[in-house]
Amino acid sequence: MSESTRTLPAWAGRPYLEKARAELPAQVVPPLLRQPADGPGLLCENLQVTGSYKVRAVCHLLNLYRRRLDAGGFGLASSGNFAVALAWAGQHYGVPVTAVMMRRSDPWKVHKVQQFGGRVVFCPDSTEERTATLLELEKEGVFVVDHLREPEVLVGHATLGLDLVQSGVPIQQVVVPASTGGLLAATAVAVKQAHPMARIIGVQPSGADAMVRSFESGQISRVAQVVTECDALTANRPGDLPWEVAREWVDEMVRVDEDDIRRAVRWLVEDAKLVVEPGGAAGLAAYQSGRIAHREATWIVLSGGNFAPTRLAQWLG
Amino acid sequence: MSESTRTLPAWAGRPYLEKARAELPAQVVPPLLRQPADGPGLLCENLQVTGSYKVRAVCHLLNLYRRRLDAGGFGLASSGNFAVALAWAGQHYGVPVTAVMMRRSDPWKVHKVQQFGGRVVFCPDSTEERTATLLELEKEGVFVVDHLREPEVLVGHATLGLDLVQSGVPIQQVVVPASTGGLLAATAVAVKQAHPMARIIGVQPSGADAMVRSFESGQISRVAQVVTECDALTANRPGDLPWEVAREWVDEMVRVDEDDIRRAVRWLVEDAKLVVEPGGAAGLAAYQSGRIAHREATWIVLSGGNFAPTRLAQWLG
Repeated sequence: MSESTRTLPAWAGRPYLEKARAELPAQVVPPLLRQPADGPGLLCENLQVTGSYKVRAVCHLLNLYRRRLDAGGFGLASSGNFAVALAWAGQHYGVPVTAVMMRRSDPWKVHKVQQFGGRVVFCPDSTEERTATLLELEKEGVFVVDHLREPEVLVGHATLGLDLVQSGVPIQQVVVPASTGGLLAATAVAVKQAHPMARIIGVQPSGADAMVRSFESGQISRVAQVVTECDALTANRPGDLPWEVAREWVDEMVRVDEDDIRRAVRWLVEDAKLVVEPGGAAGLAAYQSGRIAHREATWIVLSGGNFAPTRLAQWLG
Repeated sequence: MSESTRTLPAWAGRPYLEKARAELPAQVVPPLLRQPADGPGLLCENLQVTGSYKVRAVCHLLNLYRRRLDAGGFGLASSGNFAVALAWAGQHYGVPVTAVMMRRSDPWKVHKVQQFGGRVVFCPDSTEERTATLLELEKEGVFVVDHLREPEVLVGHATLGLDLVQSGVPIQQVVVPASTGGLLAATAVAVKQAHPMARIIGVQPSGADAMVRSFESGQISRVAQVVTECDALTANRPGDLPWEVAREWVDEMVRVDEDDIRRAVRWLVEDAKLVVEPGGAAGLAAYQSGRIAHREATWIVLSGGNFAPTRLAQWLG
């Protein structure tokens, strides 16, 4: 959609994003940037505290809501990284937290949540079932946020794009892994406010390509069976709000194969010395395998690094 | 030695270090810093181009000498990382380069050197034999630099400490892995010019502790047989010049066990999402195992990340 016809969502104005960013704990660092000398720049949210960008949204939500919580505390649905961030933030702010996770969730991520003292409630393996379980928790007195519909979640996610903009680097293109599409939508809005001509490209695994299908059909589309090693990118449909924002603000959606993701994860370890989980490397995989045009000032989000060491060892061995 | 009695070496003045830093290629980035929110700060030279700090010295030397090279090109002795950096820089500047490496050198590092088009000449497994082989090359018309005696090598190394100082962070303590001691000595001189009260602490594996022994005896001391998994820290004696500088400028030398190094490497992968080779993690291992006092504003150099993926897989599996 052309620049002139895009509508800036009410929650997405720069002053509000800046305020949200300023109120995040000091442990939430700007993304360590690998500058693009001979290749694309990398936004290393794998190096973020809790190992993914999700801590931004969790801390923003707790900044907003933690003073009105009952004994039930705060709850979110998560494929893993949201839950790890939630558990860390619960400990940081001294708030009881509950994560709704699917049965197929990575056991190592479940363990991390429990290590930080977070409660885990399991649900069947679908985005809809997860939301239903979350609403059950609400009846028990847990203050819940549905990240598929809640604008404040996107505000938290948008602080990553804001950090990129505020670092002052040139930006022609930003590549973002997508699951329900929250980070993708939020990054687009944050970056394009400052760089209207920058291209924002979302990437999904071929076996979990609900947002790509939605772009193709022009409406929210589902994947009957998600098949991917990217446990962070397992949404079987886009979020409602991410979809509404992304359809206006995102330029392109791209699919990437599992083999390309595996190659990217190995390249990151061998050549970039970074531990990135499969889903976190999807954007780089699409770029390295030629599915995205190579332009100067390309920034690729490495969205998470929570990869069980024993599983990483298998990928490297 | 107290602040007042230290002598600033002629090569180590801040203006000369700044000039050397400014002339390094754009690919040589400032160390990506992990800020100390709940732990020590990390200077991530594993994320440096070529995967270690050595590229700083190599590029500085080639900036000085590349215009006077004959067809024989430029040569250095290396346990591995210096050679990888040399090969990259040779390609960058279009200069033929030769690395003298020990027979026990990590085969993956040898492979990386050859991938970048560098020539490798093998020598017996001792620091003295390596220097002797280097001097043989000189007779064949290779322009060689002996990093155990050449001040300009320390100038290159010192640009890391300079980067740290120029980042403006508070600095109370800097922890540096040591082999012949070049990075340690150079870091001490660079940091203490700006922060005279900062403590500089060197770390060596228990089985490769020549600099620790030299500090204990007050003179250059040797290790008869080096035993360590840290292939980057295998010097059986300190360099002459590093020793002269370190004895004046370094506050403390510490030994660390192989098991602690293994734990640190695993922690870096699992919690920090960083790939660091054993030698590069020695400083962190000493800190995490309680061998170094915990003070605020502690910075730990992660000096390199060149770790064969298959070997890393074994360490993680």
